[in-house]
Amino acid sequence: VAAGSVRRVGRAYNTISLLTDLGHGDESVGVLHAIARDLVPDVAVIDLAHDTPVGDVRTASMMLARAIGYLPEGIVVASVGVGLGEHRRHIAIQIADGAGILIGPDNGLLAPAVAMVGGADRSVVLDNDELWLPSPGAVWPVRDLLMPVAARLCEGADLGEVGSDLDPYTVQPGVVPLSRADDDGIVAEVIGVSRSGACQTNLDPDEIADWGNEMSVTVLNDDADERVAHRITNAPGAPGLPIERLGPGSIGLILDPHGLVTLVAGHRPATDELRVTTGSALRFCRLDEASAARGVTTKVQLRSPKP
Amino acid sequence: VAAGSVRRVGRAYNTISLLTDLGHGDESVGVLHAIARDLVPDVAVIDLAHDTPVGDVRTASMMLARAIGYLPEGIVVASVGVGLGEHRRHIAIQIADGAGILIGPDNGLLAPAVAMVGGADRSVVLDNDELWLPSPGAVWPVRDLLMPVAARLCEGADLGEVGSDLDPYTVQPGVVPLSRADDDGIVAEVIGVSRSGACQTNLDPDEIADWGNEMSVTVLNDDADERVAHRITNAPGAPGLPIERLGPGSIGLILDPHGLVTLVAGHRPATDELRVTTGSALRFCRLDEASAARGVTTKVQLRSPKP
Amino acid sequence: VAAGSVRRVGRAYNTISLLTDLGHGDESVGVLHAIARDLVPDVAVIDLAHDTPVGDVRTASMMLARAIGYLPEGIVVASVGVGLGEHRRHIAIQIADGAGILIGPDNGLLAPAVAMVGGADRSVVLDNDELWLPSPGAVWPVRDLLMPVAARLCEGADLGEVGSDLDPYTVQPGVVPLSRADDDGIVAEVIGVSRSGACQTNLDPDEIADWGNEMSVTVLNDDADERVAHRITNAPGAPGLPIERLGPGSIGLILDPHGLVTLVAGHRPATDELRVTTGSALRFCRLDEASAARGVTTKVQLRSPKP
Repeated sequence: VAAGSVRRVGRAYNTISLLTDLGHGDESVGVLHAIARDLVPDVAVIDLAHDTPVGDVRTASMMLARAIGYLPEGIVVASVGVGLGEHRRHIAIQIADGAGILIGPDNGLLAPAVAMVGGADRSVVLDNDELWLPSPGAVWPVRDLLMPVAARLCEGADLGEVGSDLDPYTVQPGVVPLSRADDDGIVAEVIGVSRSGACQTNLDPDEIADWGNEMSVTVLNDDADERVAHRITNAPGAPGLPIERLGPGSIGLILDPHGLVTLVAGHRPATDELRVTTGSALRFCRLDEASAARGVTTKVQLRSPKP
Repeated sequence: VAAGSVRRVGRAYNTISLLTDLGHGDESVGVLHAIARDLVPDVAVIDLAHDTPVGDVRTASMMLARAIGYLPEGIVVASVGVGLGEHRRHIAIQIADGAGILIGPDNGLLAPAVAMVGGADRSVVLDNDELWLPSPGAVWPVRDLLMPVAARLCEGADLGEVGSDLDPYTVQPGVVPLSRADDDGIVAEVIGVSRSGACQTNLDPDEIADWGNEMSVTVLNDDADERVAHRITNAPGAPGLPIERLGPGSIGLILDPHGLVTLVAGHRPATDELRVTTGSALRFCRLDEASAARGVTTKVQLRSPKP
Repeated sequence: VAAGSVRRVGRAYNTISLLTDLGHGDESVGVLHAIARDLVPDVAVIDLAHDTPVGDVRTASMMLARAIGYLPEGIVVASVGVGLGEHRRHIAIQIADGAGILIGPDNGLLAPAVAMVGGADRSVVLDNDELWLPSPGAVWPVRDLLMPVAARLCEGADLGEVGSDLDPYTVQPGVVPLSRADDDGIVAEVIGVSRSGACQTNLDPDEIADWGNEMSVTVLNDDADERVAHRITNAPGAPGLPIERLGPGSIGLILDPHGLVTLVAGHRPATDELRVTTGSALRFCRLDEASAARGVTTKVQLRSPKP
């Protein structure tokens, strides 16, 4: 499609991983596959996710950060939160000594994944519009810009061919929230919900490593009671409760397959048991050993968890 | 699966693009991929769309027409609006000097895409049932007929091997609505809604090319007011409003990435702002320059837009 | 990823077919594709289905049983009904003289598909954890265990390398319900609903082969009337009603493309016409020839269909 010979000064790749908010309701994702098949027929295209809520950059950025360690060498094309007709800077970030290049909007979408693999080797702003596909109307960046740039990078083009060098400190940072300690414990957030209603949090497992097998969790809204969360063991013989023994109405705390501290409930989705969703704030508190041993659940007021 | 040697009198293809209304709720689409992998393992299968409403031939035909220009050379397998147990003629249409062959039901599904690429080179009705897969029950055309025919065409079979020549004038025409001018302006229709609520219309951009940067739009139902739509610019320096400056409650008109005149709204989905959906009728009227300059919005009755 | 050389004592495969309940809401399915691309880049991965209700082993097992006859030679990776943190045995079952190997949890998911192709050649429990991927948290079997095992099997590893031999009689049987005859007819169940509302049942077509072209069907709940179901013909000239002639309010019985006896309704979804869904119980009764000839519909009470 684009004219000109390919300068093979870079490294060639044979996989493109795609993450968008285009959904599956129309032909949009299919067209991206078609373009790749047309431009670089031997490159495989992997669909990471397309059904994230429209414009939910934060959720999509966490999906990419969770996936990045499993991706094969190659190009990541990510496009979430880019509105119709909007003029937004798009960037490419090379990571892991050239094992991968992430391309997408400069809106924080790529940042958590880049951080997860140790930071950027090199960044460019995608300003070589000679590579882009012509549009019959408004420019659609993922189709007109990111896919042909990804194809060119697969063919071995150097980053300098697709854009101009960029100061990484001008790149929009990620938007993943951090937990924070206060006098009463640690305030964390539900950062994701699984299909079965488990609630991933941003609580650092190291912060609760020596808290014992029970701790308290309170949803920070008007009428939530403090609850006791039981640490769930991940391996036979490890401290904690086997998940099969978590009874109805009980709350468990498990390190999920991504290493995130995750709330589950006995016999029903944790989202239902705790009435929480992505973005809900939670306070985790250490239980004193006596009450933990008795298994007592003390009713408390908002922002006044047990003294 | 099918017996017999392949007569390589035609052109060989290595991509099949799939468009169906089978959804993702069961294994149906997976089975189509499995059949292709079994019959022609080196052929790539691209999913264009499968989640169109069941039987919505019109919407699916527009998806195919929008996508066709981006598809690599190959076979398109399309199946929408074919009921269980229904006996319907299926056809193959060769396009673009043999760059592609579209196969699907003779119900108008293929027609807009064929028109988009300059019409049919040759058409056949798929009546060579020796190529079809046996069914344990009712014939399921996309599985039993279209997939093995697509595989045979990929292998280089001539159209004459899969069916009998067909008069293209007997083929069911497409069902894409046209806009029409009347004394008060142009009556158009919402022909598609994006995931973010932008409304594609069938208004020809040439018809409003000299209407200036504001025009009126009225939804043709009982209680809709006339609204002023602001032309949105697609490129820096072009006439119109940058989309970022479209305020709350304002309506914008943008040429979308497919070249379709599309309604957007400031700070919310246009579907919500205008209370419209696919199929809603709209009237567009030229504003006189004086009122346009003042930015006046005149309230009007249904079918009596500004005189 | 896993160390060690591959012992090519088995058969090599180049396709992995995937069936899970992970949905499309996040990056989970994409990560499975990424792992396959990383470990065995020349292997194709086919998505059979991922949107089955979470934990619905029975529905998923029927999807796999319907698909199995269409799958190319290769590995099937199936994971439905495996809860977070749960310790469950996973197994591999070789079928069809080594044409395929199914791997998944020992919860009945694989059993109907295995039965469909004539039973197991050999079974192992997947206990060679040297092949598994390390997890940053809880083990996620489909990612950490099934995908690397599938990759190793594609490379030609023998079943004995991935696990220990297993008595097939200790494997959890399938959970597909059977119909049963009683004095009043045959009690069957809706075992699946198509996207257009057709209701697949577990009624054996042989049981009604000589019942003529009309029979009665009653939904076994409190207020359902007996209805006459018209046998729908699948081929021109066969006995029964062409589906196009099934009028509003009428019920038809058709052998669906999988060979299942399936209820359809005239001009609307059978699910709406009969107010049924997956799991609904139905009684089918033979009509006497006189009433069938008159086309009479007799109102009856629950569990007292026509004598």
